[in-house]
Amino acid sequence: MNYCPDCGNPVELKIPQGDTKPRFVCRTCMAIHYQNPKMVVGSIPEHNGKILLCRRAIEPCIGKWTLPAGFLENGETIAEGTRRETDEEAGAALTELTPYVFVNIAFINQIYFIYRAQLANTNYHPGPESLEVKLFSPDEIPWDEIAFHAIRAVLRTYCTDFIRGEFPFQILDIEKEEH
Amino acid sequence: MNYCPDCGNPVELKIPQGDTKPRFVCRTCMAIHYQNPKMVVGSIPEHNGKILLCRRAIEPCIGKWTLPAGFLENGETIAEGTRRETDEEAGAALTELTPYVFVNIAFINQIYFIYRAQLANTNYHPGPESLEVKLFSPDEIPWDEIAFHAIRAVLRTYCTDFIRGEFPFQILDIEKEEH
Repeated sequence: MNYCPDCGNPVELKIPQGDTKPRFVCRTCMAIHYQNPKMVVGSIPEHNGKILLCRRAIEPCIGKWTLPAGFLENGETIAEGTRRETDEEAGAALTELTPYVFVNIAFINQIYFIYRAQLANTNYHPGPESLEVKLFSPDEIPWDEIAFHAIRAVLRTYCTDFIRGEFPFQILDIEKEEH
Repeated sequence: MNYCPDCGNPVELKIPQGDTKPRFVCRTCMAIHYQNPKMVVGSIPEHNGKILLCRRAIEPCIGKWTLPAGFLENGETIAEGTRRETDEEAGAALTELTPYVFVNIAFINQIYFIYRAQLANTNYHPGPESLEVKLFSPDEIPWDEIAFHAIRAVLRTYCTDFIRGEFPFQILDIEKEEH
């Protein structure tokens, strides 16, 4: 941030009185502009022992596989955002959404919330941001072609839970070294 | 948003090509400025069958009781943010954090994540944003003096779970009418 979104004059990075962290503060109107983590919501769409992955048509990681997921929008619940992203990226409708995993990726200021869900039908199809959408059984997951480390961590957790037949809600922390 | 945080020139609200929602777009440098929900993290600090509430020293809802909670900061995990807010508002240290409830407040673009946790000791004390911090048993909660509807909903859920002795992870949706 270089300029104040309120008044258009230059901002400076400084610790406001009573605060402990540097913030962008307008030199003219004195507005303090806080910046906070962004939330990504997505799903693991299940069907007959398989899960639906999308092959990305856009950067970053074009050509790699991922779960349908994207930034939560203002005005949405996390379930609404998850359904929207799954529809946009995989043309897929969901039923039986179950909270599954929360992922902290603190070093890029992102948090993921991923539901397990059932595919409502098999009329899925790639949206504009996907090249291909396809069902994989856990032993078919293309581990060397997964788009993001956080998604790889979610899929690994899923495969472990799949084998033991239990999917408790859990929280994962992704460290910078792993990324 | 009136001005572009990147270049300082005026923005307009319009739907970018390939998008479906209006965004603030700079008329000069064409940067698109997305706005997303903010995440609030907090705790229900437990001790000997009671929970710790804070009486607010600041607006909004000055003088009312709430759980220790606040905006997640960039660079933090949700557990780190929860410990920081609980320390800042209640001078309290936590152990045994257990994910408890996720609250959608879509109409104000906020999402809450609340842990149940144990007080590490009883050296709690009000921080600069609290007038008082105090342990309440579920039947002592001052329902008419709770600061926010989302917190009241979390506390109601907690009291129900307290009676049945089970605290499953769950998601609450707060509707505008209820606020």
